[in-house]
Amino acid sequence: MWDRLLTNCNVATMDPTTPGSFGAIEDASIGIQDGRIVQVGRRIDLAGYRARSVERLDGAWITPGLIDCHTHLVFGGDRAAEFEQRLGGASYEEIARAGGGILSTVKATRLASRDDLVAAARPRLEALMRGGVTTVEIKSGYGLDTATELKMLEAARQLGETAPVRVVPTLLALHALPPEYRGDRRGFVELAIEDMIPAAAETGLATAVDAFCEGIGFTPDEVRALFAAAEEHGLRVKLHAEQLSNLDGAALAAEHKALSADHLEHADEAGVEAMARAGMVAVLLPGAFYALGETRKPPIALLRKHAVPIAVATDLNPGTSPVLSPTLMLGMACTLFGLTPEEALLGMTRHAAKALGLEDEIGTIAPGKAADLCVWRVNRPAELCYWIGHPGPERRIVAGKDA
Amino acid sequence: MWDRLLTNCNVATMDPTTPGSFGAIEDASIGIQDGRIVQVGRRIDLAGYRARSVERLDGAWITPGLIDCHTHLVFGGDRAAEFEQRLGGASYEEIARAGGGILSTVKATRLASRDDLVAAARPRLEALMRGGVTTVEIKSGYGLDTATELKMLEAARQLGETAPVRVVPTLLALHALPPEYRGDRRGFVELAIEDMIPAAAETGLATAVDAFCEGIGFTPDEVRALFAAAEEHGLRVKLHAEQLSNLDGAALAAEHKALSADHLEHADEAGVEAMARAGMVAVLLPGAFYALGETRKPPIALLRKHAVPIAVATDLNPGTSPVLSPTLMLGMACTLFGLTPEEALLGMTRHAAKALGLEDEIGTIAPGKAADLCVWRVNRPAELCYWIGHPGPERRIVAGKDA
Ligand SMILES: [Zn+2]
Ligand SMILES: [Zn+2]
Repeated sequence: MWDRLLTNCNVATMDPTTPGSFGAIEDASIGIQDGRIVQVGRRIDLAGYRARSVERLDGAWITPGLIDCHTHLVFGGDRAAEFEQRLGGASYEEIARAGGGILSTVKATRLASRDDLVAAARPRLEALMRGGVTTVEIKSGYGLDTATELKMLEAARQLGETAPVRVVPTLLALHALPPEYRGDRRGFVELAIEDMIPAAAETGLATAVDAFCEGIGFTPDEVRALFAAAEEHGLRVKLHAEQLSNLDGAALAAEHKALSADHLEHADEAGVEAMARAGMVAVLLPGAFYALGETRKPPIALLRKHAVPIAVATDLNPGTSPVLSPTLMLGMACTLFGLTPEEALLGMTRHAAKALGLEDEIGTIAPGKAADLCVWRVNRPAELCYWIGHPGPERRIVAGKDA
Repeated sequence: MWDRLLTNCNVATMDPTTPGSFGAIEDASIGIQDGRIVQVGRRIDLAGYRARSVERLDGAWITPGLIDCHTHLVFGGDRAAEFEQRLGGASYEEIARAGGGILSTVKATRLASRDDLVAAARPRLEALMRGGVTTVEIKSGYGLDTATELKMLEAARQLGETAPVRVVPTLLALHALPPEYRGDRRGFVELAIEDMIPAAAETGLATAVDAFCEGIGFTPDEVRALFAAAEEHGLRVKLHAEQLSNLDGAALAAEHKALSADHLEHADEAGVEAMARAGMVAVLLPGAFYALGETRKPPIALLRKHAVPIAVATDLNPGTSPVLSPTLMLGMACTLFGLTPEEALLGMTRHAAKALGLEDEIGTIAPGKAADLCVWRVNRPAELCYWIGHPGPERRIVAGKDA
């Protein structure tokens, strides 16, 4: 006797072993037991099973719960005033001189208590959840000192403990140079390597380490040193790479068997090939592309050619991607980058799971996977991408429970 | 004794007589009586008034309810399959040959009953309402025969009667040429003039008449004839103009004292000047611009120079702008078109009201106006534009009642 049987539904399993677009099974049923999927198939094939609760879904579509595998959801303050100043005609320089930019977020994040950070992040997390998110990665990176980085990771953990959503925390160790290390890059990188990484590893507050490899960020050599330290401490790595220029960050990440390289607007074929060989995921962030008014798109054709799995995420952050809608990212991945709806949805399900190293646990609807599901009142899965700003699923199920 | 007093709030009145950005009053109160605003001002100045219900809003921001002054919300079917085909590599031609495009929507709309249309439109309307909309214009235009146009307008009316939202119906008489009039444009324009307009006027089902003036739509002369008929029947006019090319549609609309000209990407200074002289509103539709991947922006500088009020709307329609989020349009108006947050919000409040001829009734928070309000849990009004895909207000109030 199962716990639940969802029936009279259509299922976009996103499972590669189910043939057809979206791994779709029409007129299907899903059996759930102890928070996991035990069976999924045609309704007629599951007719013999019984469950304590049987729910007829009247033709709704069920997808895996959405996975947002790249966010900076925890931060102090916001940058709406700066947004307003910029549209009023202020230059980036004027805004920076007036105390704006990322360092204003660092300042606000340092001043905030852990509870402040949780309270500020909660409505943002709730917006993502309303949009269908059941798993969210959250990066630190606005502390730029060990105590604040840990405070951010604790806030992320607390968010996951107090809401029906899985939180996957990442130490973003090299994001920007804090004011107190101006003129001492080396000192800051040492701090990240010798203090932040050991602390994050010991406390278990992060499962991966990230960095921003860019002309205005950190150099490939600095990132290499960081990644070596992460490996020593048993942490996986991932990288913000090739967003504004090409520093061969994708290949660097591949050398370190990174989970993913993210952004990638300026990635070239060598980088894509390296990612393919390393089994990495390409995480595309159309929200930042849109908000920054970029015109250079990530190399979709190359990613397809080399069969690099493509994930799609919100990049939710206060400066360059204040995105609160995961379904909008599905649509932007299609409209701005030319992904098919199936590729886009894979990007927030199976491929996003892989980008988090959780491909055995979540991301498809298949026996053994966690029962993290979204129920959508649509006629076909492509509608999740087609509507611009779709408000989200009719309901979310997390670990088998309505959430 | 008033019905309600909303207090401990900040109010973006959007009223031109209140100085400062957004016509903002901080630490304010709003008095409501019989569905109307009776007083708005500093909390301290309203301290002497009493109300049956006093609500402390803990620093939330209150704006006028959002007004979406240009939608095609009622239609049969959807075009998600076509969207998917296009991203899969099919050309517009192939899709048209396979029965796609606007005529597929016409076909589905003709086949649908009025109740079908209402049922299909309801979740779309609910999405807009969740996003903060309290007034929505709905155009017909997928019938292309009198009976179906009226059925669409009836569906629009029924939506307004069964949900807490004001619906403003428009007869979009010249939208596309139906198959049965292929080769007889003149016959179809005559049908619109001699049958559709009189029927819409007699039944009171529409308050304005609209047309699509474009190379692929209708010629200026055809539109002129239509507008003359509308005037004879006491109906205001408005026009889809200068979206894909410049046919001097803005000036044509101005000749007929139109409420608005909409889209306007290709409008020139002569058109903008004509609009200014006629007291018209420029309705910008960033969702269609985004979905079509357009690059030519409406002439914001000219609109500012000639002080033409700018409105912003979703253009919700199945083909070129399947937008379900009004807040996303506020943001796109800023990010894609360069409006300031204040201009964008005026575009979905005061200026949108004017585009509907309802500037005395709605669109600002001022004594005598309808108490259509949104309560936002934000620190400043610019956040409505800054967040990308903001899910909407904490609550909506329509005609003084929680909705
Ligand atoms: Zn990022
Ligand atoms: Zn339109």
